[in-house]
Amino acid sequence: MLTLYYGPNTCALASHIALEEAGAAFEARRIDFAAAEQTKPEYLAINPKGRVPALVAERGVLTETPAILAFIAQCYPEARLAPFDDPFAFAELQAFNNYLCATVHVAHAHRVRGYRWADEPEALEAMRKKVPRSVGACYDLIERELFRSPWVMGETYTIADPYLFTLAGWMEGDGVDPRAFPRVRDHRSRMGERAAVRRALADESEA
Amino acid sequence: MLTLYYGPNTCALASHIALEEAGAAFEARRIDFAAAEQTKPEYLAINPKGRVPALVAERGVLTETPAILAFIAQCYPEARLAPFDDPFAFAELQAFNNYLCATVHVAHAHRVRGYRWADEPEALEAMRKKVPRSVGACYDLIERELFRSPWVMGETYTIADPYLFTLAGWMEGDGVDPRAFPRVRDHRSRMGERAAVRRALADESEA
Repeated sequence: MLTLYYGPNTCALASHIALEEAGAAFEARRIDFAAAEQTKPEYLAINPKGRVPALVAERGVLTETPAILAFIAQCYPEARLAPFDDPFAFAELQAFNNYLCATVHVAHAHRVRGYRWADEPEALEAMRKKVPRSVGACYDLIERELFRSPWVMGETYTIADPYLFTLAGWMEGDGVDPRAFPRVRDHRSRMGERAAVRRALADESEA
Repeated sequence: MLTLYYGPNTCALASHIALEEAGAAFEARRIDFAAAEQTKPEYLAINPKGRVPALVAERGVLTETPAILAFIAQCYPEARLAPFDDPFAFAELQAFNNYLCATVHVAHAHRVRGYRWADEPEALEAMRKKVPRSVGACYDLIERELFRSPWVMGETYTIADPYLFTLAGWMEGDGVDPRAFPRVRDHRSRMGERAAVRRALADESEA
């Protein structure tokens, strides 16, 4: 039995959807960000980074979305969520997820988590101001160069799909117009109709 | 035959070392950052992100250090650089490399690449000012929580080791005192004595 610690409207949704897609037996536990529960000793004992997601497995705790997604795919091979038997295809998939994590999510984080990298209010405001352009440039690259069709990696649905869906849900909040990125927007709509996505979203909204 | 595109003093060194450790047949090609070669059409045709590393393999181009490192490990299993047959151990390794990529490297990048996230000179200066603390906090977590011994993941040398070695080489430049992190510092010294590390460093300094 796996336990996924998540916060609502965070990147933990990607792991939540992947667990649903895999048919995994798991429990989703909500961390109350409004009460800063992720910084309390109880949660830091689980994940000293003070972030979500954290996935508690039999042998210990896993963090970092790309690592958790690959773990889910590898543990539930019958769901065919990642091509582990093809090193090049697996690396392409990991490269996409890594770009979401280290570039797209990071650009987005400068809107409300700029305090990680500067203290002055003027600097935080300067960061917020650039988010529509920095996040927009990421989606431009995804739309033009990285996204295959109909799924992120092409014909086969993979762990890149719930991850892109999750981050692309933040576009409007970041001041990025989804109409400029029709393939990403179409992907987001189709993802929203999948049973696994609906279950994860319903689970997070009910908690 | 693989081709690694690198810039001197960049995170591409991690992939360079891993290729040496794996005994791979490869060519290392230097990109001239001083001449902004990474932004020229010739290089953008290889890697539209305009960054290094990029690894050109038979079937195409791979980017993103954690993905390239895992690819090298999976292609050269006899070098035993990653536990692909153990999903939990592999996920722990990927989580560490992902933390280096999306948190440690990102914190460091605010020293000289702050323009990615803000335009105003005062904001860039505010970012530079916080780097010793943000990068220092990362090494504090690595020293206290993440680093096992004698190698990053414990008894076995993995692709996490050249990656940590590469980023830890930037500590002094980031205003972080390595003496505060004796395990990381000791690891850095031991890494510097490995034949594969010496070969990669010599190759990059001769080019």
